[in-house]
Amino acid sequence: MNELAEKGRRRIEWIRSRMRLLADTREEFSKTLPFAGLRIGMSLHLEPKTAVLLETLASGGAELVATGNHGSTQDDVVAYLRTQGMTIFGSRDDSLDDHHRNLESVLAAKPQILLDNGADLAAGVAASGAEGIIGGTEETTSGGLRLRAELAGKVPFPVIVINDSILKAIGENRHAVGQSVVESFMRITNLMVPGRRFVVVGYGWCGSGVAHYLRALGGKVAVVESDELAAFRAAMDGFRVGAIEELANWAEVIITATGQPNVVGAEIFPLLESGTVLANCGHFPWEIDVASLRSSTSETTQLDDAIERLDFADGRHLILIADGRMMNLAGREPKGNSLESMDLGFLLQALSLERVATAADSLPAGAQPVPDEINRKIARRMLQSMGASK
Amino acid sequence: MNELAEKGRRRIEWIRSRMRLLADTREEFSKTLPFAGLRIGMSLHLEPKTAVLLETLASGGAELVATGNHGSTQDDVVAYLRTQGMTIFGSRDDSLDDHHRNLESVLAAKPQILLDNGADLAAGVAASGAEGIIGGTEETTSGGLRLRAELAGKVPFPVIVINDSILKAIGENRHAVGQSVVESFMRITNLMVPGRRFVVVGYGWCGSGVAHYLRALGGKVAVVESDELAAFRAAMDGFRVGAIEELANWAEVIITATGQPNVVGAEIFPLLESGTVLANCGHFPWEIDVASLRSSTSETTQLDDAIERLDFADGRHLILIADGRMMNLAGREPKGNSLESMDLGFLLQALSLERVATAADSLPAGAQPVPDEINRKIARRMLQSMGASK
Amino acid sequence: MNELAEKGRRRIEWIRSRMRLLADTREEFSKTLPFAGLRIGMSLHLEPKTAVLLETLASGGAELVATGNHGSTQDDVVAYLRTQGMTIFGSRDDSLDDHHRNLESVLAAKPQILLDNGADLAAGVAASGAEGIIGGTEETTSGGLRLRAELAGKVPFPVIVINDSILKAIGENRHAVGQSVVESFMRITNLMVPGRRFVVVGYGWCGSGVAHYLRALGGKVAVVESDELAAFRAAMDGFRVGAIEELANWAEVIITATGQPNVVGAEIFPLLESGTVLANCGHFPWEIDVASLRSSTSETTQLDDAIERLDFADGRHLILIADGRMMNLAGREPKGNSLESMDLGFLLQALSLERVATAADSLPAGAQPVPDEINRKIARRMLQSMGASK
Amino acid sequence: MNELAEKGRRRIEWIRSRMRLLADTREEFSKTLPFAGLRIGMSLHLEPKTAVLLETLASGGAELVATGNHGSTQDDVVAYLRTQGMTIFGSRDDSLDDHHRNLESVLAAKPQILLDNGADLAAGVAASGAEGIIGGTEETTSGGLRLRAELAGKVPFPVIVINDSILKAIGENRHAVGQSVVESFMRITNLMVPGRRFVVVGYGWCGSGVAHYLRALGGKVAVVESDELAAFRAAMDGFRVGAIEELANWAEVIITATGQPNVVGAEIFPLLESGTVLANCGHFPWEIDVASLRSSTSETTQLDDAIERLDFADGRHLILIADGRMMNLAGREPKGNSLESMDLGFLLQALSLERVATAADSLPAGAQPVPDEINRKIARRMLQSMGASK
Repeated sequence: MNELAEKGRRRIEWIRSRMRLLADTREEFSKTLPFAGLRIGMSLHLEPKTAVLLETLASGGAELVATGNHGSTQDDVVAYLRTQGMTIFGSRDDSLDDHHRNLESVLAAKPQILLDNGADLAAGVAASGAEGIIGGTEETTSGGLRLRAELAGKVPFPVIVINDSILKAIGENRHAVGQSVVESFMRITNLMVPGRRFVVVGYGWCGSGVAHYLRALGGKVAVVESDELAAFRAAMDGFRVGAIEELANWAEVIITATGQPNVVGAEIFPLLESGTVLANCGHFPWEIDVASLRSSTSETTQLDDAIERLDFADGRHLILIADGRMMNLAGREPKGNSLESMDLGFLLQALSLERVATAADSLPAGAQPVPDEINRKIARRMLQSMGASK
Repeated sequence: MNELAEKGRRRIEWIRSRMRLLADTREEFSKTLPFAGLRIGMSLHLEPKTAVLLETLASGGAELVATGNHGSTQDDVVAYLRTQGMTIFGSRDDSLDDHHRNLESVLAAKPQILLDNGADLAAGVAASGAEGIIGGTEETTSGGLRLRAELAGKVPFPVIVINDSILKAIGENRHAVGQSVVESFMRITNLMVPGRRFVVVGYGWCGSGVAHYLRALGGKVAVVESDELAAFRAAMDGFRVGAIEELANWAEVIITATGQPNVVGAEIFPLLESGTVLANCGHFPWEIDVASLRSSTSETTQLDDAIERLDFADGRHLILIADGRMMNLAGREPKGNSLESMDLGFLLQALSLERVATAADSLPAGAQPVPDEINRKIARRMLQSMGASK
Repeated sequence: MNELAEKGRRRIEWIRSRMRLLADTREEFSKTLPFAGLRIGMSLHLEPKTAVLLETLASGGAELVATGNHGSTQDDVVAYLRTQGMTIFGSRDDSLDDHHRNLESVLAAKPQILLDNGADLAAGVAASGAEGIIGGTEETTSGGLRLRAELAGKVPFPVIVINDSILKAIGENRHAVGQSVVESFMRITNLMVPGRRFVVVGYGWCGSGVAHYLRALGGKVAVVESDELAAFRAAMDGFRVGAIEELANWAEVIITATGQPNVVGAEIFPLLESGTVLANCGHFPWEIDVASLRSSTSETTQLDDAIERLDFADGRHLILIADGRMMNLAGREPKGNSLESMDLGFLLQALSLERVATAADSLPAGAQPVPDEINRKIARRMLQSMGASK
Repeated sequence: MNELAEKGRRRIEWIRSRMRLLADTREEFSKTLPFAGLRIGMSLHLEPKTAVLLETLASGGAELVATGNHGSTQDDVVAYLRTQGMTIFGSRDDSLDDHHRNLESVLAAKPQILLDNGADLAAGVAASGAEGIIGGTEETTSGGLRLRAELAGKVPFPVIVINDSILKAIGENRHAVGQSVVESFMRITNLMVPGRRFVVVGYGWCGSGVAHYLRALGGKVAVVESDELAAFRAAMDGFRVGAIEELANWAEVIITATGQPNVVGAEIFPLLESGTVLANCGHFPWEIDVASLRSSTSETTQLDDAIERLDFADGRHLILIADGRMMNLAGREPKGNSLESMDLGFLLQALSLERVATAADSLPAGAQPVPDEINRKIARRMLQSMGASK
């Protein structure tokens, strides 16, 4: 194994040892071989955690042909995976054109099953045909939306949408994101949490998790939520709940978790106290209107790895974390969501792909939720793996 | 006003002063008179809190004809309401026959609108005809089920089912019941909560509220939940989660909140440590198998108002709270759910009845949920009434 | 046993069964008989919980001669204790003169040991001589202060001051009072706690307990504390901390726990929103300046048992709980601190009295803390009794 | 400014901007010049946060002569500080001999005031004389102990011991360490906290903080504590409390916070489940008996930066974090305690040194606590700086 692959191998070791659901599944798959004789075409982030998913599928007899998402591929991991007999296209520095060619290469390998991300492979299928494909999975909510809108009717096989599972909402959105946001706030800024004034914008699964975890650590937390029913829930959970305009000059830190664009926009910046910290944990880097912010400030200074200071002409300044991108993937050495939450999410992938491999006929064509009995089986395994009864 | 009515009047005073949503609605209704010329026939608990609802409907121009639920009517409240020009049938000591006659009397008064409880009035309508009735509301979930099953198609007007509203789930089931269960545990038993070992059976809206509030007060709390997805949620919320057989001899207190019969049954009693406290907060007094418990114990002693000691032949004893009935309505001077949570629930009634009175034509016949915009209007009012933004 | 005594007997039953530390001590004392041949003269509240302490001392061979505190004696308990061969002076309706005669009667019985409350017996001893007395205990902090000030040097035997024990601070002041204050707030007012705005005045053992328990139940809690170091502690614990003038018009409920007079005084009332609830949990009924409040309001209405409404000429009104007396002993059927916390406090009494009975010579004269090894022995027993390791 | 100094300068920028108490003090000192004409000799960690303290003292007119602790000196910070006119001896790679020479060099510069760390300078003074020294401060508890034991009577000037201040116990030991331990656990291991089983050994200021913060994040936390009174406190705080032998095989993670050696020793390792994580947050790397652990395991693998796997012959393995050193300073890019908690601690230094500079005559010789009025002044400033009343 060359040095790059060796580096990849080592980085995966701790992670693999703690993804216990997948470990059990590898053992199981190595006996049942659900993917024997099947080729899985994949488009997904290629980093140490997903590598463990790929190993798991391979243990079930699958031949794997994969490419990464554009810009997130980690070359050492790819090098390692190639030593395991997988066909991987692409590298970190790929251009967007390269990336499209990689997607085409995956489909050109004639997979029977697809593991898709953002419906990139499905879009290729819709354009060029689905010959030989029996079904697949889609990781993301936005891919699921695409399958149900622009690609509706154009994908003649079942696609199980992983991210809609209630297990992901609980295990990942509420708890793992909640945990990783408080961790990343502390890691990036080194600021004190107890007694600090946070405004969390959005009280869905992610926002309510973030609000609870910040308060649990002693933060004073107020919530902004435009949906009355969610706002009422936040109020009954004991949070101060108000409009962002009311809370702006009380805030020391604002964290967005709405999924919507420009929730902290041009009309808010003038209301903020100097030194207020702005951060986002939503998937898209659009919740804070960074473009507007930059255009209204006179000077910017990079103070630390993900900490930028933007000065207004009036003498005030704001602190912007990670340019408005997901804070829990920002800063030096970010680790993202906890290993167990990823393990959970990937088991949803593995068992859904197993279902497709072994019983695609029993599933309708098109986008569909994870079958209820798979959710329940995974919940039981997770309870056991956690030692919940101890 | 005679003495009984005066007693009723005084008991209502504090309560009315703190049911602020209804207070505002009385003012509003006294101007808009949505019920002018309409008679509302009602079947509901007649106690101080519901009295404030009746006053509110009367302020909107309604003529009220009501009877209580069997066995829960409070005579002083009835006496007071009669002084306000309402027609009330029944008294605390009514036999079941009396109660049925009262229901018939309500329908005989030819109401245009019904406020029903357990579908008792709806059943009468199904039997004897709905002439002149334009619609109504049903307070309970069980009444809603009856309307959708045995009475399906037999009620030719719209009935809005109040208890299905998400606002009730949040405001009442989760938070108000959670609060009143910890209050009643402390009030009835005078036992210490911090450090005590509680097993909460059920992790729905009520059970999860009870578990959270007990833990918040320093209790050690384990959860029993047969639904894997809810059990996973409990585990992620940090609770120990196991089968009741595993947790039985660890428990000092068991509280049931499942809605199901015999969740603590004959096979569990032998596993419990001597002195274990058994209590229930579910609606029906069937979650603890009290009959089986009594038949297997040799002696019972009433130790305090809602505290009974049952001795086994093996020398162990158990403590049974309130004979397995709802603990938050048991013991001396119980007050039940908080005034604000009742205010919320009654505003759902008032605005749903207003909708029926003013726009019954726009609603389909049969059981149906509270219209979304009514939920949202009430959530906004509740947020304002709570001063949520302060 | 006559009816009154029988009533007393029954009221003690549940309580005795849950005061497990004393139960073990009764068994132990009945073998070791530390008080054999000794008479203990006592002045203390005579109610069901203290009755269990008296039984415990009697089991150790003591002859008991007791009187109650003025105004708190419960006649059924006294009647029961008399059937157990104890000499009890006094009744609920005693005048102050009667009370003083009762104290004299206790001393006239020539006790060898004193269990004192507020140094009432010690004051008698200082006046009339300590012949035959080998030592005693003092329950209260204020009695301890008296012994160290006006009575310093006048009490020629050791007096162990119970209330100064760190175990009481933790078990009673912080946790039991915290629990009983939230219980009594809910029981008396029936108001919702989650989302409600509380100001807790004082952040000592009691105040910090009250603040934590209210917040744990979902309340928004701010703290007023004049000592900077305690105020800093509150701020680090995540509470809003400010001057009462700043917080007055934010408060929905104010609870005093300072031990100081007039902390909510005439200058505060004009700042409060109409409807604000005022309550106290400090020992003395002087923290809210009730006299000033009454003189500045035009009308008062008793709304419920411990709920009074006071109207100002400007149209605002305030709600006063229990006339400013300890709220956790107010309202219908108050139970006070938890049984286990009382059990703990009384074991401090029992073992301190045992020390006096068996080793008075080893103790210096005058007021002194509970010996460290007694504190530690009780802590170990309490941990075992709680099943702390489960 | 050369590149190294420029790197140091930039690393200090964010930190300085958030150490607001020191910022205000710099402004104040630049007017009052308490150190005008005085030379301060210093021995302390030289890293970005302490650099801000040095700047603050310099702003008060002090001439600074400093050396770092052995092994922790950061060369870029030193380079920057030298550009500011300070005399700094030493570098990261210094041998122990070099370090001793540096200490001598500081004393040889004839400082009037000492800022000491571990009593290293005081020991030099005791050996070689204190001519011209008017007083100083000592940062650490262990330095304070040394001054009161082996150096007692040998230091003829006042030394204020900073770490004994109650403000440090609250702000740093309880809250900042609690926060940084949960942060470092998440950052280093990437493991899920909610539902995980932690055993915290020690329930002093640090241990109780760690236990609370882990539980706040959803962890199941048990406490081991040999002092009965602290153990009782933990039990009343709702924690499971037991002996480490009882809890060992329940634990998934053990974190030591006792200050004592070998609290997790050879007799415990056989009791642990395979995969248990061992970590320490106490000052000394001796709480886990790492030597014994290594001698009883057959193979070790470095899995990630601060994660080591040690395999036993019986097939089990343990995970050791940071070789048993302080976990909150371990792993990639550790940041240590929060900026605000360091700001607080350094203000104690700054104002204590000011007191020495301006009123050494009013202080007794030898080790002594921070004057009460300085503690109170800082508490007030911290409350204001936090915006505690908002």
